[in-house]
Amino acid sequence: MSINFQNIRTEFERNKDLTNIKTDPFSQFKYWLQDAIDAGTIDPTAFSFSTATKDGIPSSRILLLKEVDNNGFYFFSNYESKKAKDLEENPIAAILFFWARTERQVRIVGKVSKISPNKSDDYFKIRPKDSQLSSIISPQSQVIENREFLEKRKEEELKTNNELTRPSYWGGYCLQPQSFEFWQGAPGRLHYRYKYEKTPGNEWNICMLAP
Amino acid sequence: MSINFQNIRTEFERNKDLTNIKTDPFSQFKYWLQDAIDAGTIDPTAFSFSTATKDGIPSSRILLLKEVDNNGFYFFSNYESKKAKDLEENPIAAILFFWARTERQVRIVGKVSKISPNKSDDYFKIRPKDSQLSSIISPQSQVIENREFLEKRKEEELKTNNELTRPSYWGGYCLQPQSFEFWQGAPGRLHYRYKYEKTPGNEWNICMLAP
Repeated sequence: MSINFQNIRTEFERNKDLTNIKTDPFSQFKYWLQDAIDAGTIDPTAFSFSTATKDGIPSSRILLLKEVDNNGFYFFSNYESKKAKDLEENPIAAILFFWARTERQVRIVGKVSKISPNKSDDYFKIRPKDSQLSSIISPQSQVIENREFLEKRKEEELKTNNELTRPSYWGGYCLQPQSFEFWQGAPGRLHYRYKYEKTPGNEWNICMLAP
Repeated sequence: MSINFQNIRTEFERNKDLTNIKTDPFSQFKYWLQDAIDAGTIDPTAFSFSTATKDGIPSSRILLLKEVDNNGFYFFSNYESKKAKDLEENPIAAILFFWARTERQVRIVGKVSKISPNKSDDYFKIRPKDSQLSSIISPQSQVIENREFLEKRKEEELKTNNELTRPSYWGGYCLQPQSFEFWQGAPGRLHYRYKYEKTPGNEWNICMLAP
């Protein structure tokens, strides 16, 4: 049976105009993220993270942004997961934030690298104990028999590892943007799109794209 | 200045258990989509669509699902956009739905092809006039001088094209899934992940993945 959703249609009325775009894309990002938080977005730091094998087979999953500074966007993962394997053969990845309440997207493309073990340790330490435990015992993206497998490993880990130290196969990544696009919905599908591209001189070149 | 979001953390409490997964991934998808609609999700049909160049440079943007049947997932676009160019050189793409309210993701990978002109015409006809107009006049993803360029083209188009017929550079696509993953958040980051892969005999092989 076919289901169609042709009547589900949001008319983007919130932002009639976008004339005031910042010259620094990181500032623009922080401003929009704060706006999404203030609007009551659930999981405002959630983003779609897309990798591709070197042959170009893409895959996407949701991650949570843990930090942003003028160097890049930081997040954490198992270093033996599918995404980690993709990044080993092809470090260029795409980030997409979509905030439905504020009718905005931010698209980012850049190179991903691992952060220092010390920085990964710092973040691991402040995670809730249950999250630490899951990172240690779960062989991310591998086939498992059932849930009991995970529960059993949890119990065993708790018996031997009371400190819950960060395992070497779990840690942080940083994506350093080469380009940003800021998209804001507008009435009649005439959306605003501003693209920022890094020049060889490390400046940001800004242009408007057709929606 | 660095901003960190290490205290933004949703504990996924809604779904303590997931034992009842359907053997047909399309039925499972429709069930979860309906659940997201019923939960009051804004833009429940919005998904992240990721393409990659043949060299593996990924890019992602939000699209709206317009129909799903047992053949695949249908959506519309300008056929000269960045995504269309990526699809011409590499037709394998990834779809990601994320419904924060129901704490679920669906990840899909498959081959994308254009739908028939007739089917594109059918959908074009039922779009609001303003959306039709935008599809006709906007050279999607190309650099434009300013907003006035679009407004001017709109006016000109209205003078000469009263019927607003579908232009050949705008139409539908269908992604035929080769794999699905259904992800449901669970307490302590021990999320549920079920992967469906199409076998050579066109059956679906289901396994559980470690979170």
